[in-house]
Amino acid sequence: MPTVMLRKVTIVAEALLEDRLLRELRALGARGFTIGEVRGEGSRGIRAVDWEGRNVRIETIVGPAVADRILEHVSANYFEDYAVIAWVDDVGVVRGDKYA
Amino acid sequence: MPTVMLRKVTIVAEALLEDRLLRELRALGARGFTIGEVRGEGSRGIRAVDWEGRNVRIETIVGPAVADRILEHVSANYFEDYAVIAWVDDVGVVRGDKYA
Amino acid sequence: MPTVMLRKVTIVAEALLEDRLLRELRALGARGFTIGEVRGEGSRGIRAVDWEGRNVRIETIVGPAVADRILEHVSANYFEDYAVIAWVDDVGVVRGDKYA
Repeated sequence: MPTVMLRKVTIVAEALLEDRLLRELRALGARGFTIGEVRGEGSRGIRAVDWEGRNVRIETIVGPAVADRILEHVSANYFEDYAVIAWVDDVGVVRGDKYA
Repeated sequence: MPTVMLRKVTIVAEALLEDRLLRELRALGARGFTIGEVRGEGSRGIRAVDWEGRNVRIETIVGPAVADRILEHVSANYFEDYAVIAWVDDVGVVRGDKYA
Repeated sequence: MPTVMLRKVTIVAEALLEDRLLRELRALGARGFTIGEVRGEGSRGIRAVDWEGRNVRIETIVGPAVADRILEHVSANYFEDYAVIAWVDDVGVVRGDKYA
């Protein structure tokens, strides 16, 4: 089965940031999201904020240029003040030509 | 720690498709599933259906042949009519000999 | 956007194991967790226990040495008696120097 290699960006953040993040991610070129309610626990972010509580886990599958823009944006705008974690990995997507 | 490289297939689909999908995935050779309730937002699928609402995120860890069969099946049977996304990636599985 | 390659360990286990697992994972060097409520279905673990029910999906991003310790620990202490699955993959983490 041929799949298209794309990048999956996952962001875990405080639940209250969801609307703002989705709006910004759309502006950066993301077109679809999967959003799950999760709990976070530990120390995260550049200030090593301790946090524990309601988080959202946002996944979006995008091409490499959009992935880069999203990671830059999250790094520049969230890591100083929020307990946010963001990572990227490569996935093979069915009918992936629609997402790039 | 030696792990076995296997394929993790993730399918995000409307919640009402869950029972049917699990039945079909089992028939194609999948033996275990992790299912989470998520929300979807955006445009997806070959018709770029706009959707927003209750979705399930189904993960199954399988060998490469079963992964291929699942991706073919989902592509052939769901992409025309449903807002479905499916992707695959390689994971190292503890005691993975049981899953292949 | 430069990211740091780290290992993401995901463990899916019966919900009642959560507190014990998190305590042990912390002792092994993990510092942050994302925890989602999921359902499990199928046969898993070395005894191929059939299970169905409330599970937790625990993700932690760590360096390779901590990942190895976690996988060894889970393999040695859970696979005989519990329906547990654990896998690892490589992810590129924003500001990942904090997690290694």
